[in-house]
Amino acid sequence: MEKTLNFLNQNHDRFEQELIDVLKVPSISALPDHTQDMQTMANMLRDEMQKIGLDNARIIETDGHPVVYSEWLSAPKKPTLLIYGHYDVQPVDPVDLWSSPPFEPVIRGDRIFARGSADDKGQIYIHLKAIEACLATQGDLPVNVKLLFEGEEEVGSIHLEDFIKEHQEMLAADYVVISDTPMFREGYPGITYGLRGLAYLQVDLRGTSTDLHSGSFGGLVKNPINALVEILAQMKDGEGRILIPGFYDDVLPITENEHTKLSKLPFSAREFAHNIGAPTLFGETGYADLERLWARPTFDINGIWGGFQGEGAKTVIPAEAHAKVSMRLVANQDPADIAQKFTAYVESLIPESMEAAIKALHGGFGYVTDLDNPGLLAGVRALEKAFGKEVDFLREGGSIPIVKVFADIIQAPVLLMGYGLPDQNAHAPDENFSLNNFHKGIESIVYFFEEIGELQV
Amino acid sequence: MEKTLNFLNQNHDRFEQELIDVLKVPSISALPDHTQDMQTMANMLRDEMQKIGLDNARIIETDGHPVVYSEWLSAPKKPTLLIYGHYDVQPVDPVDLWSSPPFEPVIRGDRIFARGSADDKGQIYIHLKAIEACLATQGDLPVNVKLLFEGEEEVGSIHLEDFIKEHQEMLAADYVVISDTPMFREGYPGITYGLRGLAYLQVDLRGTSTDLHSGSFGGLVKNPINALVEILAQMKDGEGRILIPGFYDDVLPITENEHTKLSKLPFSAREFAHNIGAPTLFGETGYADLERLWARPTFDINGIWGGFQGEGAKTVIPAEAHAKVSMRLVANQDPADIAQKFTAYVESLIPESMEAAIKALHGGFGYVTDLDNPGLLAGVRALEKAFGKEVDFLREGGSIPIVKVFADIIQAPVLLMGYGLPDQNAHAPDENFSLNNFHKGIESIVYFFEEIGELQV
Repeated sequence: MEKTLNFLNQNHDRFEQELIDVLKVPSISALPDHTQDMQTMANMLRDEMQKIGLDNARIIETDGHPVVYSEWLSAPKKPTLLIYGHYDVQPVDPVDLWSSPPFEPVIRGDRIFARGSADDKGQIYIHLKAIEACLATQGDLPVNVKLLFEGEEEVGSIHLEDFIKEHQEMLAADYVVISDTPMFREGYPGITYGLRGLAYLQVDLRGTSTDLHSGSFGGLVKNPINALVEILAQMKDGEGRILIPGFYDDVLPITENEHTKLSKLPFSAREFAHNIGAPTLFGETGYADLERLWARPTFDINGIWGGFQGEGAKTVIPAEAHAKVSMRLVANQDPADIAQKFTAYVESLIPESMEAAIKALHGGFGYVTDLDNPGLLAGVRALEKAFGKEVDFLREGGSIPIVKVFADIIQAPVLLMGYGLPDQNAHAPDENFSLNNFHKGIESIVYFFEEIGELQV
Repeated sequence: MEKTLNFLNQNHDRFEQELIDVLKVPSISALPDHTQDMQTMANMLRDEMQKIGLDNARIIETDGHPVVYSEWLSAPKKPTLLIYGHYDVQPVDPVDLWSSPPFEPVIRGDRIFARGSADDKGQIYIHLKAIEACLATQGDLPVNVKLLFEGEEEVGSIHLEDFIKEHQEMLAADYVVISDTPMFREGYPGITYGLRGLAYLQVDLRGTSTDLHSGSFGGLVKNPINALVEILAQMKDGEGRILIPGFYDDVLPITENEHTKLSKLPFSAREFAHNIGAPTLFGETGYADLERLWARPTFDINGIWGGFQGEGAKTVIPAEAHAKVSMRLVANQDPADIAQKFTAYVESLIPESMEAAIKALHGGFGYVTDLDNPGLLAGVRALEKAFGKEVDFLREGGSIPIVKVFADIIQAPVLLMGYGLPDQNAHAPDENFSLNNFHKGIESIVYFFEEIGELQV
């Protein structure tokens, strides 16, 4: 271990230079003009994998951008990690708002600025450099590893689920490790143990065959906008609790342990509100702010429209009214079940004078890793050793649908050990990554391999 | 009287020909290309007034299209009628949908088809021909009359209120008579004794300074669309009753007399619903259908918008949400008072985490003529004598703002003796007017002059 840590020190500058080199490649998966860059980036990763001593490094074609895969499986009776990341990046528009060109990496202070620095090239390089250091100094790894880097994460991982299903045996593992999330605060390592899911639906109401004059018909017909607001107003009570029957049936409650851990995180409601220009925050009664944000489901109307939206006053009773709604879900809510419960509830509220269509547009499962999971605890110990600080236990309010796909198909816990920072601007101008997190991250993964290697399989 | 009725019979065909002549003039007030036609039409009316023996017939310029005025004031101690109508017509688009060209009048069956036939040239000619018949056969009229025909009714009577105020003395009268409304059913004369008013407002809600991601912020901020639907859902209860405090304070209740009269009108809810493509009708509990439509106030959301309205699923919590709402009012509700009450109520419902702007966009008073008004009863007797049928007592769900202006400035009851029919297509292709109503209408006005002439002033 001593030798490995020395290796990290001695190669500190080279690691940064190598990161700079990969950040120069504009591997934007969404733009057809960058197909060649995607290939270049995949080749560089495969070459790097070979160079550091990983086995079977290869590019595997999909119906979209290719997957880069490699493995090191010479630790018999030791656990196997499937390390997932992505080498594609977001587009860079509006490019004018960048302080320096997005594909000309620049170091300012502790941060390296470039598209893909935090999301996700800097984070996959943490794993590659940790593996390199171990293999170079110890000749082997204390765990088995499989590396799977895709090129379509920023376009919805459209071919990955099929890929995982088709390569289930190749990808078999005891733990899935993903480094693609931010820490909660600078200097403090974090581990994300929960994600929210999603059920997204559209409601279309029709009252009449055509728009009507509100003078000639008002009072005698049900206005579909009035009906829609009356229906949607019944989705939550005044305390922010969702009223859809059965909605909370499968919700995993927040444990005392979680509550204690989440309450340790510094959170200023005033600052949060100020940052988004809100007079004050609002959430479900009985829960702390971060619980409302991460560990409790929501009901939001994402869009609504109907009738006259122009300047002035048009006295119309519209024929139709529409809304898009979504519910952030938590483990163990099933998006299909929730969509069905929402639909049934809305249908029960529709006035008889109205026709309705309710369609599910999108859905995904939430996810939570047990806080007592031995792999998670190994990650916690490794992070604390490297960063010298207690780990922040985090959840995420958004969804990373592929996490649940991994968990279900690989049938392994997913550990989200992320090294980004809250102000990393992942999908915005001036994306950046902390070099301190990069180097401590590599160290933490070295420790992590060792910690995991001691677990029973 | 015998002589006057004979005169009507003898001049039956000429009257129709004269109507055809004025219907040929495309006096479309909304289109600048027709300014000359407006002048032509005004000149024809002034000439006609002079020809039939009205005094002081003249064209009075306004800041828009001119007013045509004339009078006959030689019946001392008799009541004075101010007869208002308009000589401008609606545009004709879509002209392809007309069965015959809109300004080439054609008689098919009992109907004459032309733009302006019902709205309102046919109806103002009823008055001109009645006056002509009386003056030609009796040498005088049993009442004093003032005729005021404007050229901007179809563009909102934009200069008429000022005109009335400026010519208050010239226009002084005991009754205002307007023939510009439809009967309820063919063959049955009708008198419209009530109109609804209007209060139209816009509500703008802002939750945050920018749109937010529903995963990263959902649960911790109040969504302005959610807030808007929750507010707007509290405007009416499940029985269609409006919940704005004080909303009904000034509402004139429906009298037993009215209720009896309105309940005599044939109304098929099923047919009404079928015609507008509604599964069924819906209205305020405790009132008959026509009362809901004509004599009770409403609350309608005329437009609503916010967030994502495109294809698919965008998980946004929008910064803003908007709605346009209107309330049809009844006498004696004051639109400014109602706008203020709505505003106060909405403000009381706005969550503290939300900023709101509420602005009144438009308003107008409702109107009702007392069913015992002697002028109204004179009109009823006249209509019943001419048509040989009991008069239908009607109200209108929409608003004719100028009615309340006349009532307030002239300080006289307004009598809405209309000769159109429900299928007259007033603002649509194939506008038409019943020739039976034209001729019986002239007769009814002859009787009406006589009936009114017998009233005390």
